[in-house]
Order: sequence, then structure tokens, then C-alpha cells
Amino acid sequence: MSHVITEFPVRIYWEDTDAGGIVYHSNYLKYMERARTDILDRLGVSQADAAEREDGRLFVVATATIRFVRPAKLGDNLKVLTSVETLRRASIVFHQEIRRGDELLVDAELRVGSISARTKAPAPIPGGLYHRMEALVASGETL
Amino acid sequence: MSHVITEFPVRIYWEDTDAGGIVYHSNYLKYMERARTDILDRLGVSQADAAEREDGRLFVVATATIRFVRPAKLGDNLKVLTSVETLRRASIVFHQEIRRGDELLVDAELRVGSISARTKAPAPIPGGLYHRMEALVASGETL
Amino acid sequence: MSHVITEFPVRIYWEDTDAGGIVYHSNYLKYMERARTDILDRLGVSQADAAEREDGRLFVVATATIRFVRPAKLGDNLKVLTSVETLRRASIVFHQEIRRGDELLVDAELRVGSISARTKAPAPIPGGLYHRMEALVASGETL
Amino acid sequence: MSHVITEFPVRIYWEDTDAGGIVYHSNYLKYMERARTDILDRLGVSQADAAEREDGRLFVVATATIRFVRPAKLGDNLKVLTSVETLRRASIVFHQEIRRGDELLVDAELRVGSISARTKAPAPIPGGLYHRMEALVASGETL
Repeated sequence: MSHVITEFPVRIYWEDTDAGGIVYHSNYLKYMERARTDILDRLGVSQADAAEREDGRLFVVATATIRFVRPAKLGDNLKVLTSVETLRRASIVFHQEIRRGDELLVDAELRVGSISARTKAPAPIPGGLYHRMEALVASGETL
Repeated sequence: MSHVITEFPVRIYWEDTDAGGIVYHSNYLKYMERARTDILDRLGVSQADAAEREDGRLFVVATATIRFVRPAKLGDNLKVLTSVETLRRASIVFHQEIRRGDELLVDAELRVGSISARTKAPAPIPGGLYHRMEALVASGETL
Repeated sequence: MSHVITEFPVRIYWEDTDAGGIVYHSNYLKYMERARTDILDRLGVSQADAAEREDGRLFVVATATIRFVRPAKLGDNLKVLTSVETLRRASIVFHQEIRRGDELLVDAELRVGSISARTKAPAPIPGGLYHRMEALVASGETL
Repeated sequence: MSHVITEFPVRIYWEDTDAGGIVYHSNYLKYMERARTDILDRLGVSQADAAEREDGRLFVVATATIRFVRPAKLGDNLKVLTSVETLRRASIVFHQEIRRGDELLVDAELRVGSISARTKAPAPIPGGLYHRMEALVASGETL
């Protein structure tokens, strides 16, 4: 994957598993969303505030392509690695990997759209956030 | 339990279970909430509308006492039996049982408060709903 | 989509929604899994039994490509439409659509692999199930 | 509450909230379970191992009494405070509080039983764990 902007830790609890003894597949999408929320946090964006402001923006997943390579299990300590594939005015394509140590468990590409919190219609990413995201991607650094 | 006003069916899927091979304990609260929502539906109340109206009311669980007697498992077909213990102007005490056939799995008493959708402060149950609920409890009938 | 083998109903409860007022994205994967479980039920397969038998088979999602077109909301009554794109000895490609009336909300293609419940390694779909699935796909009928 | 043995952090993500804009009530039980799992971790107990060993023990919630005092919201950073009310050979009564800063949100008393991972029947807490728990409670210390 290209330049990893964050590594986000996830611990697997009973609530995450199913009767097959492994993590229920849809839960990996939650972990990837936590990691994207963490990126917004680190860039100084509060989604709770955005949800309540007239001109607030929310991010919604528009498309997701996911490969479930190996299952995670109870007690696992995972990492979600996130990189930005494409940054556009009203959408971002993220590549995210979920790893247990060096082992790849899940791999996904998600296109996330920016919408108006009020009208729910597509709306540009706020300028401040866009520029911080752009600088972060250009920097090659991990937050 | 006193007069059962509804029997609501619940099927157990993979998403409901955990690595212990049984239903994860907090999920039973979801099934009880589905059954209470179903009662409101049957009494002609749309919570989706209420959430958006200026004078809308929402119901929130204030207290819950739950006994987990036997676990449910993948593929089980359960029933949630609901009775009204106490009906007050701004709150209702429900008794709910989750059964697999005749077998009692979970037993709970929940006090649910009525709040304003706008201010989130306690607010009386709308008169129409209150009277339909009162009539249902008095009738001794199952919906 | 090609021949729809089942239409499976899903009701949206509070548990399904998030603070954006819409269904949390990962939950659509749960509804699609419920619909696939329902197909196995209708073909006489108990996954609960399979999970406990020495030679039992489980199905796991290997890849998923999902488009989130429009959000579902509290109180919605949805349908999951399922068709089989490809039936192989140890895997099935499903196409699934989630609709509210005629409106398309979510569209997905999922490759589901058959694994041994004991070893978790890929293993052929049991012959009986394979042939019933094959006949269903060939029939052009909706269950 | 009596002597607090751990303070466990919980961050509220989109997945935790519902269309009422607050945390869905059953999720607080998950946070309390994470905190109890964390206590076992700190005492050197792996539940994943226990689930697979012949003589392993699992903990199951037998009864819960919960007061939902104030709702948590998106982006909140909470703490779960846990104390042991009663330690018995095959069960523990925990008192758990969920706080946002000094503000009490949820308060619960849970009786958790020890069962055999194999037979699911009640079975004494393993001696080593019992004594470490007893020493922790007696110490008056926070882990």
C-alpha cells in the first residue's frame, strides 16, 4: 500500500466474535471507520460538532471493496493501516489494511463522500480540512 | 407474568452470537426493544416521524433489571412476550420475557421514559397513544 | 440482476441506525447474511448443526464489493433480493440488492467460500446442498 | 461505589450511536464487558485460551440491574469504573459505573457466573485467578 498515514489499534472482544469462533465479517468495516474517525480527530475535526452545524459536513461510505484474507479471533490486538489513494474536492479514496502483527487479515478500498449534514447532498470537504489532508498526504509522514 | 400484550418473533443469526457459541448478552436488549417498537407500530405510532416533529416524543430506557436464565443459540426461533406492569403519564414499566418454545431464556423489567424529541427532557406520552395503551392493558387482549 | 432466488424482508430498528439518522453502513452486510442464511434454511441446511458436526461446512465471505446508493432510515421495510452469479464446488458468487420498494439502496457482489467447520480450510459444498442450489438456479424460480 | 479496581477508557464512534443522536442503550453493556475483560487480561487470564481448554472457564452475566442516567454522545471519551461487590467461588458481583469526566451516565450491578467452557455448567473460578482477584480486592489498589 502507498504511504500509511495512521496505524490505529483495535482489540477484539467477545462482542466482535460470532459462533464460528472468529470476528463477524461486517465488524471489520467498523474498525476501518474508527480509524478514519481517528484521522479526523488528529486533524482537529469534530464530527459531533459537524453533525449539528448548519454548514457541517459528514462523511459517508459510497463504495467498498473488501477482501477477507484471514479471520481475527478473540483477544487479538490488531492494527488498521490507512493510506489515501485519491483526494478529491468532495470525496476521498482510502486504502485500509487490518493486520495482526505482520499478517494481513483484511484489505479494503473505500470511497468516502463528503455530504452536507443538513441536506445530505454531496458537498465539498471544508477547505481547512482539505488542505490539512493534502499536506499530510504530501508529507509522506505517519501521524 | 401479567397479561401478555404481544408475542414478537426473533430469529437468531450469526451476527447475534459470540465465540462462546451463544447469543451475546447485550443483544437480548435489542430484541426487547424491537418488540416494544412493534407495539408502537401496532398502535399506529411512527417513531421515525416522532423523531422529526417539533412536539415528537421518544422513549428511552431508564432502568433495566435482567435475568439471563439460559442462552439462545444460532438458528433459534425465539419469542419476546411483553406485558405492561405500570402505565404512567410519562413512563411505562414493561415486563418482557424471551422464550424458546416454553423455555424461559431471559426475563426483564424495564422502565421506559417518554422524552421530548427536541429537548430530550421528560414529557408526557401523547394523549392518543396513552389512551390506546390504557385500553389495550385494560382489554386483557393480545395484539 | 439475474434471476432472483429469494426476497427477504428486513425491518429497520433503532439498533440499526446511527447519529446521522440513517442505517450504519456495516449493518447492510448483516441483512445480506440473514438473507443467505434464509436460503440455506429453505434448502434444508442447518448451519447450527454444521458448526458442530465433524464433517460440517461453514460459509465465509471471502470478498465483497458494495455500493451504498441511498441510505435506509428508522422504520423502513426493506427487501434483500439475492441471485447466484456463479456456483462452484467450494464457492458461490452472490449478487444482492437491498431495496425500499422499487428504490435501490445497496448493491453488492459477494464471493462466499465453503470451509470445513473443523479445520477452517476450504472444502467442497456438500453434494446434496450443491445439487439443490444448482437446481434452484437452473429453475429460474423464486423460493 | 466501593474500591475501584480499574478505570477503563471507551471512545464513542458512529457505530455506537443511534438515530436519537445518542448511544444505543444496549451498547453500555458491551463497554462494561470490555472493562471486565481488561481486568482478566491484567490478572494474566486469556479468555481465548480458556474457551479452547478442556478445563477452561468462561464468565457469563447471570443478572444485571442497570440505570441509564444520562446519554453518551458521538465523540465522547468515557471511563468505565469497576469494583467488586462480592467475590464467591463460582460468581462475582461487580458494580460498574460509566462516567464522562465526573458525570455519571450509567450505573450497573452485574452478577457474573463462572461456567465450564466445555459443559457450560457452573464451575468454580480457577484457584489462581480467584486468589489474585481476592488479593486485588483486599489491596484497595487501582490496577
